Amino acid sequence: MLSLELGRAHDDVSESVKEHPAVRWRAGAVSREPDRLAVEEPLEIRLGGRRFTLTMRTPGHDEELVAGFLLSEGFIKSREELGEVRRVRGARGAPEPNAIDVILNIPAGGLRERLKRNFVISSSCGVCGKTSIEAIERRVAPIEDGLRACASVILRMPGLMREAQEVFSATGGLHAAALFALPTDGPAGGSDGIGGLSLIVLREDIGRHNAVDKVIGYALMRSMLPLSRTAMMVSGRASFEIVQKVASGRIPILCAVSAPSSLAVELAEELGVTLVGFLREPNFNVYSRPERIVT
Amino acid sequence: MLSLELGRAHDDVSESVKEHPAVRWRAGAVSREPDRLAVEEPLEIRLGGRRFTLTMRTPGHDEELVAGFLLSEGFIKSREELGEVRRVRGARGAPEPNAIDVILNIPAGGLRERLKRNFVISSSCGVCGKTSIEAIERRVAPIEDGLRACASVILRMPGLMREAQEVFSATGGLHAAALFALPTDGPAGGSDGIGGLSLIVLREDIGRHNAVDKVIGYALMRSMLPLSRTAMMVSGRASFEIVQKVASGRIPILCAVSAPSSLAVELAEELGVTLVGFLREPNFNVYSRPERIVT
Repeated sequence: MLSLELGRAHDDVSESVKEHPAVRWRAGAVSREPDRLAVEEPLEIRLGGRRFTLTMRTPGHDEELVAGFLLSEGFIKSREELGEVRRVRGARGAPEPNAIDVILNIPAGGLRERLKRNFVISSSCGVCGKTSIEAIERRVAPIEDGLRACASVILRMPGLMREAQEVFSATGGLHAAALFALPTDGPAGGSDGIGGLSLIVLREDIGRHNAVDKVIGYALMRSMLPLSRTAMMVSGRASFEIVQKVASGRIPILCAVSAPSSLAVELAEELGVTLVGFLREPNFNVYSRPERIVT
Repeated sequence: MLSLELGRAHDDVSESVKEHPAVRWRAGAVSREPDRLAVEEPLEIRLGGRRFTLTMRTPGHDEELVAGFLLSEGFIKSREELGEVRRVRGARGAPEPNAIDVILNIPAGGLRERLKRNFVISSSCGVCGKTSIEAIERRVAPIEDGLRACASVILRMPGLMREAQEVFSATGGLHAAALFALPTDGPAGGSDGIGGLSLIVLREDIGRHNAVDKVIGYALMRSMLPLSRTAMMVSGRASFEIVQKVASGRIPILCAVSAPSSLAVELAEELGVTLVGFLREPNFNVYSRPERIVT
């Protein structure tokens, strides 16, 4: 039976939102003020104390997330099978903010069979299944360069991207990623640095990270890496995963039409990526390594 | 060095877009006409002929997708290590549209070490890693009921959802999923059926599918399943995965603010889910099981 209890949608905003300093460009005027970012953090799901999977999520209602995930992915069929969902506790009994343990109410043999039916061993998907965030940070060296790009160049990207988005205009259902060559210094690039900006490649996909992978794959197959004098623009939001992918291609500037997540900003700072968000003429915000963007 | 070859962004639109009949509601007027959907299909990635992973993607530039994925996930470091990327061929030599094989140029021991470093065995994430699409279809029985919902009820959902989206308005960075109780028939629900619509719960997350899992988990933990007289609304697009999750909770109606993918529509049809897209007052489109929506 349906109980019409109203969901507590307003109880944990503080967990879901984090303040981060941002450099705001507003029609040429630059200011520095904090911006509110949606929090993105990994959640480790354990089954009977054993590590099962890792997913990126916004903290809050983690028990519900795990219960719904287990049901919708076919591991459990009912409330009874869910058993007990509890927060993992650390050495001193303090709850771990990013780990949930589930004691399923299913015979061990039945669970093995369900795991086998639904998942392949050694599967992979974006950041999920990664042994740890630290592994990514160890693998990708920070991008350290003296690159500078004019704000006016950054502001030209959305228009160039839109022009090339044929599929999107036809269906409204695809994410896009575009790689731009930045103007070189000196007379060839024009005195304002605008002349030389050009689109290298644009790819679209139902999956945000797939569009980025296609662009990086395009460049890799043509031996264009490292992509030192380029910028990537993505149509939607910038997540942790997108920053990781962009840094793998050694792309120093990532621009997103919408908001970045908290973890995207933190990783961008560590990996030396300049992260631009809310890029919509004539405005944008810079969340990390702002020194690369100049007037 | 950077070659400024222009990306071929316009060469494969036919692969990426598919026509599907839709019932269009436009300010009360109903018509039936084809709509263009972004194609979503699984791609199997093999390493040296052995199945490695499955990802949902929009067909087109699959070789680039695989190359970029392997680089950005840390399996390869250069063009040389990528080796050969080729389309899998079926029994009669015809290319398989949804399978790519990669012969990496890495010693076997090195690959094992990289797999171990980057991925946990038996990890899982949404649809990735599923042994097959058919497994999902076998697992979830179609929803067959005589439920009817007024178009006017459907049109009230976006407004109710927006009111409850506190985090989104603060950051612009979160997806939302909302579960609504549909009005019951008869006088209690009001003669127009509007009186009884109510929000059961709303959840937000950086991940679209996480928001849906949280809502379903909320209901599961309160033993509210099956969610027979409810409708789910999601803030963005409707993918295959969202339809699968909604059907797991036995929710008969799924509404999305934006476009559904081709596979979302196909799965919704098979699982008996009414899929509503582009729900923005006073309009919406119905892509599957349109008989549930009445005037």
